[in-house]
Amino acid sequence: MAYFDAASAAPLHPVARQALQASLDEGWADPARLYREGRRARLLLDAAREAAAEAVGCRPDELTFTSSGTRAVHSGIEGALAGRRRVGRHLIVSAVEHSSVLHSAEVHEAAGGSVTTVPVDRAGTVSPSSYAAALRPDTALACLQSANHEVGTEQPVREVAEACRAAGVPLLVDAAQSLPWGRVEGDWSLLTASAHKWGGPSGVGLLVVRKGVRFAPQGPVDERESGRAAGFENIPAVVAAAASLRAVRAEAAAEAARLRELTERIRVRVPELVPDVEVVGDAVHRLPGIVTFSCLYVDGETLLHELDRAGFSVSSGSSCTSSTLTPSHVLKAMGVLSEGNVRVSLPPGTPSEDVDRFLSVLPDAVADVREKLGAPTASAPPSPSPSDSDELVVDSLGKLCPIPVIELAKVIGDVPVGGTVRVLSDDEAARLDIPAWCEMRGQDYVGEEPADHGFAYVVRRVS
Amino acid sequence: MAYFDAASAAPLHPVARQALQASLDEGWADPARLYREGRRARLLLDAAREAAAEAVGCRPDELTFTSSGTRAVHSGIEGALAGRRRVGRHLIVSAVEHSSVLHSAEVHEAAGGSVTTVPVDRAGTVSPSSYAAALRPDTALACLQSANHEVGTEQPVREVAEACRAAGVPLLVDAAQSLPWGRVEGDWSLLTASAHKWGGPSGVGLLVVRKGVRFAPQGPVDERESGRAAGFENIPAVVAAAASLRAVRAEAAAEAARLRELTERIRVRVPELVPDVEVVGDAVHRLPGIVTFSCLYVDGETLLHELDRAGFSVSSGSSCTSSTLTPSHVLKAMGVLSEGNVRVSLPPGTPSEDVDRFLSVLPDAVADVREKLGAPTASAPPSPSPSDSDELVVDSLGKLCPIPVIELAKVIGDVPVGGTVRVLSDDEAARLDIPAWCEMRGQDYVGEEPADHGFAYVVRRVS
Repeated sequence: MAYFDAASAAPLHPVARQALQASLDEGWADPARLYREGRRARLLLDAAREAAAEAVGCRPDELTFTSSGTRAVHSGIEGALAGRRRVGRHLIVSAVEHSSVLHSAEVHEAAGGSVTTVPVDRAGTVSPSSYAAALRPDTALACLQSANHEVGTEQPVREVAEACRAAGVPLLVDAAQSLPWGRVEGDWSLLTASAHKWGGPSGVGLLVVRKGVRFAPQGPVDERESGRAAGFENIPAVVAAAASLRAVRAEAAAEAARLRELTERIRVRVPELVPDVEVVGDAVHRLPGIVTFSCLYVDGETLLHELDRAGFSVSSGSSCTSSTLTPSHVLKAMGVLSEGNVRVSLPPGTPSEDVDRFLSVLPDAVADVREKLGAPTASAPPSPSPSDSDELVVDSLGKLCPIPVIELAKVIGDVPVGGTVRVLSDDEAARLDIPAWCEMRGQDYVGEEPADHGFAYVVRRVS
Repeated sequence: MAYFDAASAAPLHPVARQALQASLDEGWADPARLYREGRRARLLLDAAREAAAEAVGCRPDELTFTSSGTRAVHSGIEGALAGRRRVGRHLIVSAVEHSSVLHSAEVHEAAGGSVTTVPVDRAGTVSPSSYAAALRPDTALACLQSANHEVGTEQPVREVAEACRAAGVPLLVDAAQSLPWGRVEGDWSLLTASAHKWGGPSGVGLLVVRKGVRFAPQGPVDERESGRAAGFENIPAVVAAAASLRAVRAEAAAEAARLRELTERIRVRVPELVPDVEVVGDAVHRLPGIVTFSCLYVDGETLLHELDRAGFSVSSGSSCTSSTLTPSHVLKAMGVLSEGNVRVSLPPGTPSEDVDRFLSVLPDAVADVREKLGAPTASAPPSPSPSDSDELVVDSLGKLCPIPVIELAKVIGDVPVGGTVRVLSDDEAARLDIPAWCEMRGQDYVGEEPADHGFAYVVRRVS
């Protein structure tokens, strides 16, 4: 049994558990009260704030504990936008931000604000110059994650922060994935994070607002957490969050090196072991514990079940594993294959043998799924009776990922070189996966055309 | 050592601690994931929701876990208001609601909505007929607490819910104080509560929205908790909250009878033991564990410190114990004395001897504070040299509660019967406490007049 989904939530760190249990006795009272139980709670809260601030690299009075990382993002963005309302209502985000950032941007846009989404390259990286080009005189706030949660790619926060600083625009950094590994470098203005990503308990987020940043909390507030996070403080959880952040930081350098070696092993070995795989995310500038790849002709949900049965818990950005039937917005923004997507995110302490065992079960798991789906094999002979026609139409309407791609692959040999296949599909994933298949197979993706139902995706056979 | 502030926060119930510790191992993963850790987390979350729904008396799919009771109130009010935006933008609250309700009302008003605040009588009770009279064709939402958090008075929720139902207006009941004791009766539409009030952990609130109630969540949302509470679910805390609610309910009837006897003892004995005390809140329709009284000529903060030193943790609605220098809005709405205010709220399990010990130390604690402040004693002889003047002016400008009242009491004997004393004061508490003193002392409160600084409070000597 191996849990390889630390980027979703890390199991509770032993230090967090210890701190939580100890502070359940001392930290349950209202820290605003003057009696002894209240004073004890206040001392715990203050100490936790100092420890967390030290780990972030900010002043304690710049740091607010929120009820989750999501809440920190929502409050941080709306507070910063409101604080600079006079400057303008323009918001910049990258295309690969966490959904909490993008949801905030949607709400801002629905309320009449404007949003620029900065694209990323195929590795998932924002270019500092295109980010800088998005800055406008009416930009109220810019947001950039420190590292991506789905593919592990690190963003050029320092350079983007410099550009923002030069333009007088505050930069909010969502540091949820990177904070356990170290401080966020660069001259950022706001920062958010989430304790359960580093083995702290659920229910604790961090919102840091640097002194001097204009900030106007929105919605009903109370006197708690400097008016930035309403509601009774959850002190035992806050204490556990701060204690475990210190603990993971103490081991961060050594553990990062170790995990980086393990994820590098996966990066290198998976394409050797499994045919038709695309490893995604930056190979160098990446988080230590995350590695992501996509497998052609594979249904992500079935693969996850296979791996679960084999004892591995991973997640996927494939459309079939989400409730919305659309592929992950991160994979979409990168323009990479989304079918059969697997994110491996190793918790600190993952034994090397678990990774080796994963590499030993993965090829069969993928092969089983492909076989079930009737996917073409690499060694399949060319079609015995190629069609005379220069154009074939494949009707994949009503069929979900990865079927349209499989059907395309099965007939491409039926048209002569130079001929085209038109795949009719109403599956959102086809838009991403058919071009990605062309790229992997060296075929020519001509483009898409609206069809009676869905779209026609046109592919020209090159070889 | 006795903690008598359960209405702020109850110490963790042993069942909550047990459930929390057990579910830390099982409930840390993302319940939206398909692998085994996720499925286990989902099972725990579903079971907790069923248990909490059973205790509330609603369907599981009507109940959302939020990150605090405050958040439940904020989200509940803004969602219900937005859901009925087409009907109108009128909101009704009682004058003695929890601050989270009143803060929501302020935000609504600032955004252009209208708010009617229904007054209460001297016992802190809303009259169903005056509540019903506030209902208008454009009323989007009505809010009423089940019982008051500062004085324990129970509200006529059933009658008010009937009036609201007849008018087609949803009623939101803030049940934070009463839910541990039983379900809220009556045909309410929305309900909120807070786990740390019943010995659950901090960080868990409940928001119940009955099927058929129009509800439009505001702000950025995600797919969690039916889109009504964004952010990663805090499952161990939720499990502990549900388990402890069941546990306190199992003992509620017996414990309520026991605590009611103890608070009745305080209600009866305090006025016998301590001169110049007003016990506030309804004597009959009240929560089992709360009793509140105010002591003339006493500074609430000093009294709290004296009681803390004697081993009792209580809270106060006096102005001097708050950061705003205004008395509790509840005491203000009731029109009762606010100086020297003490709220005793007994946690379940409070031993009878603790209450007796409290009654034995209270008289000296109050007497010490009065002596330090130079308060007039009940047995003080009348002024040896009454003034010839029919009107005396007392300049209490810059002096805080309870000094203006003490200075008034010291000179009232200096004017002849029928003469007046004008107390100049810029302390917000004087507006409440000078009339309350007149009521207690049988003197005639004439009224207030604006003065150069602050106000002149005019009192006519009657006896």
